[in-house]
Formats: sequence, C-alpha cells, structure tokens
Amino acid sequence: MAKDMTLYWGSGSPPCWRVMIALEEKNLCGYNSKLLSFEKQDHKGPEVMKINPRGQFPAFQHGKIIINESFAICEYLEDTFKGQGTALVPEDKGERAMMRQRMHEGNTLMGKFIDVAFYLWRVPEAERNDATLKRNKEALTAELKLWEGYMQKGPGPYLAGKNYTMADVIVFPIIAFLVRMGLCEEKYPKLTAYYNHLKSRPSIQKTWPPTWKDTPGQPMLKDL
Amino acid sequence: MAKDMTLYWGSGSPPCWRVMIALEEKNLCGYNSKLLSFEKQDHKGPEVMKINPRGQFPAFQHGKIIINESFAICEYLEDTFKGQGTALVPEDKGERAMMRQRMHEGNTLMGKFIDVAFYLWRVPEAERNDATLKRNKEALTAELKLWEGYMQKGPGPYLAGKNYTMADVIVFPIIAFLVRMGLCEEKYPKLTAYYNHLKSRPSIQKTWPPTWKDTPGQPMLKDL
Repeated sequence: MAKDMTLYWGSGSPPCWRVMIALEEKNLCGYNSKLLSFEKQDHKGPEVMKINPRGQFPAFQHGKIIINESFAICEYLEDTFKGQGTALVPEDKGERAMMRQRMHEGNTLMGKFIDVAFYLWRVPEAERNDATLKRNKEALTAELKLWEGYMQKGPGPYLAGKNYTMADVIVFPIIAFLVRMGLCEEKYPKLTAYYNHLKSRPSIQKTWPPTWKDTPGQPMLKDL
Repeated sequence: MAKDMTLYWGSGSPPCWRVMIALEEKNLCGYNSKLLSFEKQDHKGPEVMKINPRGQFPAFQHGKIIINESFAICEYLEDTFKGQGTALVPEDKGERAMMRQRMHEGNTLMGKFIDVAFYLWRVPEAERNDATLKRNKEALTAELKLWEGYMQKGPGPYLAGKNYTMADVIVFPIIAFLVRMGLCEEKYPKLTAYYNHLKSRPSIQKTWPPTWKDTPGQPMLKDL
C-alpha cells in the first residue's frame, strides 16, 4: 500500500497518465489519487500550487519528497521500488540505451503534436497564420513517419525491443492521444498496431482516462 | 581512452555541450570529436543522417550503440561508467529526486527560450505577430523568475543541493546560453551567481563553445 503517496492529476493528460501507469506497474496501490479538473482550473488552485509552483498536473508527493515532472516521477518510482512489480529498465545494455533514446524522443513527439493542437486550441484566432499551421502540420507528419519507421524497422514489439520498458510507460499515452485525435490507421499501421497491442495491458486499462470513456475524440489528425 | 566513441556536434548548442561536459566528468578522453557546422547544414549531411535520422546534433555512437538524445547520452554515460570520474547521480534519495526534477524542468526552460529566440530567428517575418511574441516573452520571464526562486530558496550551491549532479550537466549550458543572450544580472542575481560559480569548472572550461570565444552574444533578453 502506498498511503504515503499523493498524486494530483487531470484526465487525458499524457504526463499524468504515464505516472499512473508507472504506479500500477510498480504495484503501488492505494495511493491518494486526487482527480481534479482542468476546466475548473484546479491546477492553478492552492492545493496543487503548494506542491507544484508551475500550477500543473501531475503534482506528486511521497512522504517529504515532491516531484512534479512526469519523467522524473516515473524514474523515481523505478529507482525507489526496483525489486517490486515490473522491472521497467531492461538488463541488456543495448535495450537500455534504446529505451532512453525513445523515451526522450517522446518529448519531441509530444512537442510537435502540441504545436499543432495548441495552435488551434490556445492561440487567439486573430494571431493565427495559415502558413505557420501548415508548417507545424508538416513537422508533425514528418515526426509521425519517423516513429512509424521505428516500429517497422525496430526489433519490437515494444519501443525498446522485446521487453515492456519505461519507454512504453512514457510514450504510450502520447500515442493513445494521437489515436484519439484521429491518427490514420492506413497511413500509420505500425503505430496503430502498437496502440492496439498495448491498450489492453492491465496497468493501462486500469488507468484509462475517465473522460475518454464517454466522449469521442476529435479527428484533428485525420489528414496527416 | 574512449576511441570507440564518436560525437558529432555543433558549437553553442546546449544539447551538444551537455554531452561534452558529461564525457569530461566521466574522464572519457580521446573520443572522436567531430565538430561540424550548423551554417553549412552539416547536421543534414549523410555522415550525421546515417547515425541520427532526425538530422540533428548531437549524434553519438559508442561501439554498436547509437544514441542521439542528449539526456539519454548523458544517462548512458553515467550508467556505463558508474565508477569512473564524477558520480553524477547523488547517493541521497532526496537529492536524487531533486536532480531528476530539475533536469527535466530544464526542457521547459529551454523550450520557453526557444519560443522567444526561434520566433525571431526562424519564423518568417510576414508570419510574426507582436501579441504572440509578447506572450512568449512573458512566459519566458515567468520561467526565469521560477528558476531564480529555486536558486534563492534551494539548498544550493548546485541545482539539486550540495553536490554537482546530472542536473547541472544538463541545465548549465542553457543558463550559459541565456547569459550570452543578455540575461540581466540585476534581475537574476542568483542565476548569474550560479553561472559564475560553474563557468570555471574544468569540464566546462575545456568544452566551452569555440564560436563563443571570439564573438559577442546578442542582448535579446536584456529587457526580460
């Protein structure tokens, strides 16, 4: 039981989701799970701001230790509970290097997605420019093709090879977000197959974003 | 001697610089250091593309292992040469958690800087919008104030506490870039003091970007 752990999270956020998957993989049940609302701006409220001065989810506390960066929380959990649950860092040196490479590339994948999605969601309409959006979409397409190629050429079936690793914990929620936003199965068959392979994994099923269960996604990426 | 290692790099890039600092800290001398040119688009040339399909510096090979993400290379070096040179991962659990938190926050600091700098350097003038640039500058200012606060409140003198760690390897090159771009000492005295404290560290001195030695920076950030 992980009663001395508290996680503040918002539904559908890949950084939050990966932390929840890591907690499941490390068999850390019974933590204080505080589901809050992005819409109500709970992430800017005093409870979260006290732990995370950035006013963001996830915000995480274990005893006296506070960590808020999702990569850092996942690494902390693996480090602190090494012998418990799934070993998320592979023993093989080459696979470990690949795991690290892919998990950090996940930041770029997320960044290119954000450049498209947030441009539509957050940049005021008066400031938007078709040429910028077109360039951002081209950059995301190139990024998706790169990952499709990784899945095609790589040893698989997981991101770093034959074992489920931290790279999958980190990157799967991004892929799932892309699928929800309309990623085209015909153009990205390997990425879609990876998604279909992992989506029924118990740690992922158990932590599936509650707001995704009853609402459809947006077909934002269907042309990419 | 690290003759079985090759690093392709460009001068002044924080991701390249942090890898070079890590190599020095781990006493990995004599690697094949391939300084190439951003201006000549060497990062898009066949030599680099063969190792890094993103066409970016750094590109790194050790024997058969290829890693290109700078965080991943630094972690790989620490992992592979644990008992050699500086121990970049502290023994204390709390300090280790703080190291992880700060190093990943480094990505946000770099991102906010890029949102300002690349807006001026890379977005075509016809697409630029004063409101966007103003918002990006405000976001960078808030980010800089956060880090100034960390240095003020934190145990120091290093980012994770009393020891020089991976967090400093990762983040120092960003701070140095900010200083070169005109970071105001009066507004950010603690960040400037951190820069001044670390800049003469042997690993940093030895790897100082060669193109920075003879050219001035730009006062881009002086008003922030």
